[in-house]
Amino acid sequence: MARGGGARALARAQRRIAEAGRFGIPAVAHEECLAGFTAWGATAYPVPLAWGATFDPALVEAMAARIGRDMRSVGVHQGLAPVLDVVRDPRWGRVEETIGEDPYLVGTIGSAYVRGLESAGIIATLKHFAGYASSAGARNLAPVRAGTREFADVTLPPFEMALREGGARSVMAAYTETDGVPASADPDLLTGLLREQWGFTGTVVADYFAIDFLQTLHRVAGSPAESAHLALAAGIDVELPTLKCYGKDLVAAVRAGTVPEELVDRAARRVLLQKCELGLLDEGWEPELPTESIDLDSAENRAVARRLAEESVVLLSNPDGVLPLSPDTRIAVVGPRAADALAMLGCYSFPSHVGTQHPEMPMGIEIPTLLDALRGELPDAKVTYTEGCGVSDPDTSGFEEAVARTREADVCVAVLGDRSGLFGRGTSGEGCDVADLELPGVQGALLDALVGTGVPVVLVLLTGRPYALGRWDGRLGAAVQAFFPGEEGGPAVAGVLSGRVNPSGRLPVSVPRGPGGQPWTYLQPPLGLAGEVSSLDPTPLYAFGHGRSYTAFSWEDFRGAERTDIGTDGSLDLSLTVRNTGDLAGAEVVQLYLHDPVAAVTRPDVRLIGYQRVELAPGESSRVTFRFHADLSAFTDRSGRRVVEPGVLELRLAASAADVRHTERLTLTGPVREVGLNRRLRCETEVS
Amino acid sequence: MARGGGARALARAQRRIAEAGRFGIPAVAHEECLAGFTAWGATAYPVPLAWGATFDPALVEAMAARIGRDMRSVGVHQGLAPVLDVVRDPRWGRVEETIGEDPYLVGTIGSAYVRGLESAGIIATLKHFAGYASSAGARNLAPVRAGTREFADVTLPPFEMALREGGARSVMAAYTETDGVPASADPDLLTGLLREQWGFTGTVVADYFAIDFLQTLHRVAGSPAESAHLALAAGIDVELPTLKCYGKDLVAAVRAGTVPEELVDRAARRVLLQKCELGLLDEGWEPELPTESIDLDSAENRAVARRLAEESVVLLSNPDGVLPLSPDTRIAVVGPRAADALAMLGCYSFPSHVGTQHPEMPMGIEIPTLLDALRGELPDAKVTYTEGCGVSDPDTSGFEEAVARTREADVCVAVLGDRSGLFGRGTSGEGCDVADLELPGVQGALLDALVGTGVPVVLVLLTGRPYALGRWDGRLGAAVQAFFPGEEGGPAVAGVLSGRVNPSGRLPVSVPRGPGGQPWTYLQPPLGLAGEVSSLDPTPLYAFGHGRSYTAFSWEDFRGAERTDIGTDGSLDLSLTVRNTGDLAGAEVVQLYLHDPVAAVTRPDVRLIGYQRVELAPGESSRVTFRFHADLSAFTDRSGRRVVEPGVLELRLAASAADVRHTERLTLTGPVREVGLNRRLRCETEVS
Repeated sequence: MARGGGARALARAQRRIAEAGRFGIPAVAHEECLAGFTAWGATAYPVPLAWGATFDPALVEAMAARIGRDMRSVGVHQGLAPVLDVVRDPRWGRVEETIGEDPYLVGTIGSAYVRGLESAGIIATLKHFAGYASSAGARNLAPVRAGTREFADVTLPPFEMALREGGARSVMAAYTETDGVPASADPDLLTGLLREQWGFTGTVVADYFAIDFLQTLHRVAGSPAESAHLALAAGIDVELPTLKCYGKDLVAAVRAGTVPEELVDRAARRVLLQKCELGLLDEGWEPELPTESIDLDSAENRAVARRLAEESVVLLSNPDGVLPLSPDTRIAVVGPRAADALAMLGCYSFPSHVGTQHPEMPMGIEIPTLLDALRGELPDAKVTYTEGCGVSDPDTSGFEEAVARTREADVCVAVLGDRSGLFGRGTSGEGCDVADLELPGVQGALLDALVGTGVPVVLVLLTGRPYALGRWDGRLGAAVQAFFPGEEGGPAVAGVLSGRVNPSGRLPVSVPRGPGGQPWTYLQPPLGLAGEVSSLDPTPLYAFGHGRSYTAFSWEDFRGAERTDIGTDGSLDLSLTVRNTGDLAGAEVVQLYLHDPVAAVTRPDVRLIGYQRVELAPGESSRVTFRFHADLSAFTDRSGRRVVEPGVLELRLAASAADVRHTERLTLTGPVREVGLNRRLRCETEVS
Repeated sequence: MARGGGARALARAQRRIAEAGRFGIPAVAHEECLAGFTAWGATAYPVPLAWGATFDPALVEAMAARIGRDMRSVGVHQGLAPVLDVVRDPRWGRVEETIGEDPYLVGTIGSAYVRGLESAGIIATLKHFAGYASSAGARNLAPVRAGTREFADVTLPPFEMALREGGARSVMAAYTETDGVPASADPDLLTGLLREQWGFTGTVVADYFAIDFLQTLHRVAGSPAESAHLALAAGIDVELPTLKCYGKDLVAAVRAGTVPEELVDRAARRVLLQKCELGLLDEGWEPELPTESIDLDSAENRAVARRLAEESVVLLSNPDGVLPLSPDTRIAVVGPRAADALAMLGCYSFPSHVGTQHPEMPMGIEIPTLLDALRGELPDAKVTYTEGCGVSDPDTSGFEEAVARTREADVCVAVLGDRSGLFGRGTSGEGCDVADLELPGVQGALLDALVGTGVPVVLVLLTGRPYALGRWDGRLGAAVQAFFPGEEGGPAVAGVLSGRVNPSGRLPVSVPRGPGGQPWTYLQPPLGLAGEVSSLDPTPLYAFGHGRSYTAFSWEDFRGAERTDIGTDGSLDLSLTVRNTGDLAGAEVVQLYLHDPVAAVTRPDVRLIGYQRVELAPGESSRVTFRFHADLSAFTDRSGRRVVEPGVLELRLAASAADVRHTERLTLTGPVREVGLNRRLRCETEVS
């Protein structure tokens, strides 16, 4: 799999660019790398939402290091990832690109990705700074209605963590506006907070066309030059993908004296500094030319992609042990996602992002379908397949055959979900927002028909967002949720179905009961939960953090601090033993949530402040210790300061946000303590 | 209709209260009066959403004066109305209690209500201060995600107008929290803004149980005394409905020195001042005792109720002139709302609010159903009736008969909609929030079945919110939208169907195409409208301000200013002639919208800044002049100042937010001008 052509073309372009300028300076070459290097023939890893499901930052870091190495090998300097937007409304099309609905999970997994990418010398680009995921009605780019406190406590922390812990060297300004101010024209955000408070010294780049959008979509500028002025003044150093506002109009405006030249110099200095760091200004610089063919989808890559995919599969329910499937059973595989390799990919993978617009082009990587993988996993099973319906078309004429095949089988595996694509070409992906969380097209009706046969139905979802499953609660043999698991997703999911893989994924987003009632995520103060004052009950069917295993774990021997009152700058250890009491090796994810009973402002009933994935052989146990520090209880008070308040707190060790196994009550004593930029962001854990 | 019993009981209670206290001070007696005095036997006027549909502040003022007089006649001093919340998500159950989704409409109609009520000596109580309508997911009391600019430019203006133009003497703090701060514990809102900036000197009262909720629901207080402390410090003077936090716990806290006594004195002083104003501290005060029986539902009341109801009915569509109905036609009336008097009432009318919990009690007022009223209107028609289905139950067994009756008729009148009730007892009303805007229960399926007959179907909606009607677009004979039109609603709607009444209501809320995709209202910057960047198109089926008539109007002879550049403190007149070119008397509502092409922050694409309802006999014309002042273009800039910016503006004369008839382009010249509290809030109009 030789992929040297693109690299050589890039090298030629770099030479042309260097020769065309007065100073012989080449470009910073950037590319997308949301779920793998977005290049033909490069490994398509699981999407970020699947990374969230692994709760395994180390593995994500390893993946990102591989992505970075592949990008460097072809001469790319900067990767436009990770997405650190925190899901606020699962109807948004770009949910698949996010790591989930919790800022701590997004921050820890996202920082791991940044560390991996930067370890390979690639500039990681944190995006979308900031607030993009909160658009009203989940419509892409729609105005964001959010206050400064939500911004400070939910939206911004992953960025802060990825800068401090990951060392990201670039930030992308978001398309969106919050409360009337477009991010790309917001100096308070891009300069005041990012550079002056946080000390960021890298580059800020525009999202594609975002500077021009200040005039054409936001209408806060009257001309391209005005857009350029606003963006430069706010702190955007680089216009992407091409020059529109930062080109001749800007030059004319500077010459006319309407845009201060210092603003241009400031941006140029930052970009040149980064080019220095990259060695692009070194004497004798030559574009890197691969001397041999490049394999962007090596066996090592595929192994990491496989492991990530396997760890990301979430077993939602399996009440009667229908899973794993017996080796010699009769299986009716049904559904529009079973036999399509693209069912494994998100919209920023090369085949979905670019390839689908050039259907004549071969895919460039091997992607087994779930159907093929399942046949491989269970060679003795009698497997039939029928599509039943399309992903989004209204035709139900295939139901009859699907029902007939199901009636002839011992079990039905219904493989439903999304087709990811850009701007209306998919049911998930950028610009593919939905009005509610009903399964796309007539897939829900197909599932009704299958369930109606009485044959046990194993629902397998290959999606980019959670969908409402309350309608089938208690009526499914089992339910498996995979979020676009990448090129090795077919074998990974098939492995879970066969039992070769013991599922260990945990939900990075809540699975709702009903399709309406959005927006909702689990981060809710008491009045955001079910209660007497509204007829709507937003309680999800499966909580954030939920996921089952084929083995059983006992949680034992909880030990808290000897004294339960600590200072507002104090810390304590909380530990437990997790034991695999079943017959299979498996992984448990111990989650630590904070409950703050009384605070100066309303607080989420629970929020994640720590977690630890633990792999255990049958009978094996591990001791897990969480190092809680009072900083982790900090929040933004009424005056905008981030403080630790004295008072009672509850630390809840839990298997999901709704499945608490142990509560430790402690009291913080002393004064209200303002915390600064050096506060602990992370709950360290120790496993022994 | 003698209703003196309640008044005498109140007088006795007042005497007891006065005698029980050390100083002989009676209470301020308050009652609900959202859509009429909430008392047995009192007139049930249309709900506020219907007032919004009239675009007729003078008539609303006349209604409120009547309500006030009736309340005074039985010894009540304070009325807990109007609701000035601006609709931000139509799924909210209390949308029926609001005046609509535009702050200018809410402010002008709401101020008229206040003037009327206060003219009778009743203390009007503006509620809910502030932000309550913006709760996430439209769940009642759920947290509000909004920034300070949205608050300043959308949420607060109706309150400012009702204080300045209406002279309201009380304000009720909202249940809700915005960005973590509960309104009832927010001194910046209840004292800083309301009293110090706006100069309000009346009382601030708690919503029912809201002070206790600071502990039990918001968790910003640890005890009733702490709740009391927070609420007092914020500026709430009166706990309602009973003492919980302001009682013995507060006394103990004051004695213990944890709550400053001055806070109690401050609240007591405000309440006592108001009692002085009311004459309750006058020497020789005696409770007012009605000497004769009191008629709370006089003929004059009913006439006002009738006129309001008639003006509020919105004819959404009538493409082929199916309406008005022929006098001798065969009519199949179908639907769960046709034969129920309660279909006319919102949840704060006495029969719905209290009566439904005492079904043994007679209704106390006469409320003709639509079915009865229609039979009265069209005595020569052959009218059949079948219910078809219930409001919200899933039973479809009645469809068959409904379809059969429809097939035998010339026209079907499908009367669908809401049952209003409290806390889950209705499909609309307080605590009756919905997950989407699908018609309740199986009513949509019933409508499908009726439309499927091929017989023209006239859809009549009696609802508390807009519902999605896109599914039937182009398939209905006609569509009529009434928002709980009150005790005279049956004759009013029947009058529209028969042609006795020429419909003149205009939508105070957009009618969406599809049931999902909320929240959305028409106040959207460009990115909140349909575009290339999202697969979702939020364009409503019927725009804000839409409504048809049986006659036709021409808009002629537009005249703008002689010079189209005015100062940022300038003004200009914009006038037009409206002519009734049809054969029937009717009313047109001329609407003035502002479009601001470029501004320092994103601005709504259009927003209402003026309107004038014009009644015209056939052939008659009127000249309507709008006195536009630059103040009306003011908005809150990035620094939080309210400013008028120089630059181009468009004034759009329109028949709805989507139906522009004339655009006047002007340029504001001069410096950015900060406007203060004395800025113009209203576009004066002149009709000649």
